[in-house]
Amino acid sequence: MSQKSFTILADGCFPTHETPLAHLRNAQCVVCCDGAAVKLTEFGREPDYIVGDLDSLPETFKEKYADRLYPSADQETNDQTKAVLFCKEQGATAITIIGATGLREDHTLGNISLLTDYAETFPDIEMMTDYGVFTVMTRSGSLPSHKGQQISIFALDSRARLTVGNLKYPIPGKPLSSWWQGTLNEALGESFSLNFEEGRWIVFRCY
Amino acid sequence: MSQKSFTILADGCFPTHETPLAHLRNAQCVVCCDGAAVKLTEFGREPDYIVGDLDSLPETFKEKYADRLYPSADQETNDQTKAVLFCKEQGATAITIIGATGLREDHTLGNISLLTDYAETFPDIEMMTDYGVFTVMTRSGSLPSHKGQQISIFALDSRARLTVGNLKYPIPGKPLSSWWQGTLNEALGESFSLNFEEGRWIVFRCY
Repeated sequence: MSQKSFTILADGCFPTHETPLAHLRNAQCVVCCDGAAVKLTEFGREPDYIVGDLDSLPETFKEKYADRLYPSADQETNDQTKAVLFCKEQGATAITIIGATGLREDHTLGNISLLTDYAETFPDIEMMTDYGVFTVMTRSGSLPSHKGQQISIFALDSRARLTVGNLKYPIPGKPLSSWWQGTLNEALGESFSLNFEEGRWIVFRCY
Repeated sequence: MSQKSFTILADGCFPTHETPLAHLRNAQCVVCCDGAAVKLTEFGREPDYIVGDLDSLPETFKEKYADRLYPSADQETNDQTKAVLFCKEQGATAITIIGATGLREDHTLGNISLLTDYAETFPDIEMMTDYGVFTVMTRSGSLPSHKGQQISIFALDSRARLTVGNLKYPIPGKPLSSWWQGTLNEALGESFSLNFEEGRWIVFRCY
């Protein structure tokens, strides 16, 4: 099966860091959440699809891009989740989310934690910010890194236990009972590992 | 005992919203985390104290404010926590944290969750951002609101149960097993309540 990589541009802060910008520039297909389509065109790229409740999309955009609008008024899911579901319908095999952080902190927290829901369908889903990449671990394994790279790990289940390999600060198999407890670690080499029996873990790797 | 209100200016994004700016302008006493002192002087106010490892404070500031520098090289705590401990030593009765979000997302997450640690000593501690105010609930009770105010609730213990009163969307006593599950609620009136047997809850009220 050929790889179908989708990039979702959420309607938070448009990125300024070169890594997410280069990703947007080279993306196979960009799905914009509502008003994010405006930001993408200002960046010089056309949206491939526009999803969401479309309440923040100007009329001129609705007309110009009428052939690629996928409105959804479902109040139970946010626009980021609508975009992920849309990608799934389109047969996506990989998803990168950009622009999902940097404005309201409750949106930032919500959007980051939703990655663990999406990971049931897309285990390799990632979120690129101006500072690094969020990914999800639902089973023990390793992630690539570079020596000295700043790493933070967040537990979605505050009672699950974790040990890590090849990180500067060991985690002694106790639950990470607060979000800060797995932050500000550092990779010792080309990869590091998370080892656990249960739980969903969000890993942030700074660039 | 007279009220000793301390404001901590962390070294994240300097605020742009009028509410935290007005608070900074009128604050009784401002404790700056390291390089935040530079931002405060650019805003037109002198720091009362400067704490942290001081690795991002220019030499000119170290000389000019030598009488109010409180360096701490402790690697186990971040500068925000050092500032809170300093406020405690100074006899603070109330603390407001500003400038703790908006840059690296792992710092944002860590700083927000640390509020629950501080709340053991300062139950009314609050964090003001450009979008709203974070507070902590460690026992059932009410918070003031205005009709239509956007409210998000985060569980630090992913298995604790919660019900709420006077919010638009009920929470049916199930654990908030992911951070997004208590987000994007709405106040119905002048106050709302959180009711629970155990756990620590972070509440975000948009302005």
